[in-house]
Amino acid sequence: MKIICEKTALITGVNIALRAIPTKTTMEILDCLKIKANDGNILFVGNDMSLGIETKINGEIIEEGSFVVNAKLFSETVRKLPDSEVVFTASDVSLNIKCENVNYDIPIRSAMDYPDLPIIERKNFAVMSQLTLKDMIRQTVFSIGADTEAMKIMTGELFEIKGKKLRLVSLDGHRISLRNVELNEEYGDVKVIVPGKTLNELFKILSGELEDKVVIYFSDNHILFEMKDTLVLSRLIEGEYYLVDRMISGDYETKVHINKREIADCIDRATVLIKENDKKPLVFDLKNDEIEVTLKTPFGKFDERINIEKEGDDIKIAFNPKFMLDALKAVDDDEIDIYFMNVKSPCIIKDKAESYMYLILPVNFNAD
Amino acid sequence: MKIICEKTALITGVNIALRAIPTKTTMEILDCLKIKANDGNILFVGNDMSLGIETKINGEIIEEGSFVVNAKLFSETVRKLPDSEVVFTASDVSLNIKCENVNYDIPIRSAMDYPDLPIIERKNFAVMSQLTLKDMIRQTVFSIGADTEAMKIMTGELFEIKGKKLRLVSLDGHRISLRNVELNEEYGDVKVIVPGKTLNELFKILSGELEDKVVIYFSDNHILFEMKDTLVLSRLIEGEYYLVDRMISGDYETKVHINKREIADCIDRATVLIKENDKKPLVFDLKNDEIEVTLKTPFGKFDERINIEKEGDDIKIAFNPKFMLDALKAVDDDEIDIYFMNVKSPCIIKDKAESYMYLILPVNFNAD
Repeated sequence: MKIICEKTALITGVNIALRAIPTKTTMEILDCLKIKANDGNILFVGNDMSLGIETKINGEIIEEGSFVVNAKLFSETVRKLPDSEVVFTASDVSLNIKCENVNYDIPIRSAMDYPDLPIIERKNFAVMSQLTLKDMIRQTVFSIGADTEAMKIMTGELFEIKGKKLRLVSLDGHRISLRNVELNEEYGDVKVIVPGKTLNELFKILSGELEDKVVIYFSDNHILFEMKDTLVLSRLIEGEYYLVDRMISGDYETKVHINKREIADCIDRATVLIKENDKKPLVFDLKNDEIEVTLKTPFGKFDERINIEKEGDDIKIAFNPKFMLDALKAVDDDEIDIYFMNVKSPCIIKDKAESYMYLILPVNFNAD
Repeated sequence: MKIICEKTALITGVNIALRAIPTKTTMEILDCLKIKANDGNILFVGNDMSLGIETKINGEIIEEGSFVVNAKLFSETVRKLPDSEVVFTASDVSLNIKCENVNYDIPIRSAMDYPDLPIIERKNFAVMSQLTLKDMIRQTVFSIGADTEAMKIMTGELFEIKGKKLRLVSLDGHRISLRNVELNEEYGDVKVIVPGKTLNELFKILSGELEDKVVIYFSDNHILFEMKDTLVLSRLIEGEYYLVDRMISGDYETKVHINKREIADCIDRATVLIKENDKKPLVFDLKNDEIEVTLKTPFGKFDERINIEKEGDDIKIAFNPKFMLDALKAVDDDEIDIYFMNVKSPCIIKDKAESYMYLILPVNFNAD
């Protein structure tokens, strides 16, 4: 096999395919990238058996073929090359990389050893903007549950399409994050659970351009995200997702309109007094046109007052500051509304159109 | 005690004093900063018993006094405050920090518990530009030896003044780094060994401005660096430094003139094939107007050719690539000269005026 490509194209391709290389694996072959040149396409493939990524790079194919190479070694080698044209010449066991006066010879393996990406039927699909999907992932993925076998479903996000509506939902037992978007067309109904890891990697690959499209294909066990030069293919998580609609109430006793930055900065300040993993309730005392935020830990006391617009009853309620801060950071609006029911029910941060909705369960606090 | 200062002044002061706070200590008091307000000065002090830093910050003293506070907690608290005026009010056991609508109360201790900085006689001294000293430290400190009790002297740098000449030297048994500078005036002769840790921290405090001066005071056991608002005081390392002049020869058989960037990039590329801590010789084959750099490891083979200007004999010699790269990175010149004697003798990278000089011992290699 022999191919020629520009260093910049190489780097882009390697960076994308690397996202499917597991950080730790006992199967040596999964530490590798597959590079394949045929039918006029140069493809870089990474595959951790659950997530597979294939990306096309620009270049010239002198001789078709394929090989498998240690991903880390290959990526580091390529990264340090001069900014110029790179010639790859592969024999059975060795790859020569030539760029200007630089020559590397590194060991390779047969592409036969590499696990193929599953082929999925491209029937059910939806099309949307890469920017929109990127935003939706960012705004929900933080509240998926930790990876414990008992709660496998929580480690993924619900992707639900009904008519023209796409909804992404994540939850971890203490909070629910929800994003709705209207698609341009009506597609078939879909309800699948996508692994959080897939979404985290996909997030880094999606472009930030509204005009760039991604086609999402759904099969029984897989989801495929198809972008211009790149495919991201992932297993789905099996099971029935939680019935989140039952957990959300539209009623409230208190509604607060507040500057997002002010409250986020305030919570951030308070957490200075919390040692990592230490759970301390952050108390919100809503009275008239003011919210008083207090925290008390062995490291000191914190107190800040912020002006608000309030409708409804006064309420004193406490939250895990991290959960509140995560939700506030996810919201792009400068001014937000927070709805409270009572000290036992979750507060809800949402916009009027309910394009986003964050439920956070309160925690107990001792009113000294 | 009560003081008022601007957040920005606070941050600057805290950042400087923090440099003397040890990362790990069994003495809890050393995790603290001392804050002292009297005689119109607000001082922040850090002290790890070997290195002490005292810095003055702008502010208004309402009531004189002093206290000791956990450095990490204080610095994080102050960092998150709104960009505004901050009022500190200390009682015996607690410090109230007030800034706009924010209130912190954090525990403090009596300043009596804090170790005083030693008072040193300000007799022997030298004055120089902070920028020059900063450069000299950067260009030598990387080759001090690791901290092993047996080689205590190697963990420091030689500061030597003779007439108008200041020389900084560091060595670690495999290499020597040397910087010479001409001072503006003649000072008394000095020869002391300054701990590498002190120089690393001082480097971060020194300004990058040629006009800013630093006065260096030398006493029997201490060195004091006095800048505009900051004092850095350090113990010296006891002992006689190595007689480096005996290790340096002016003779050479081969002189090479080379583009620094090209050779540095080349070595950087080669090291991709070396796993951390694995010692592999990087072979330099100097023939006619070319240097061929080769490396062979279990991860592959590397080969690059670079054009050079050469005087004298051809030579094939090998080095630890890290040591070569460290020296090249330290040099500011775009074009450099490297002098070789034979395959057993160190190569020397130096400019004509010998303002810098880097000796690196070669390593064995098997000529296959």
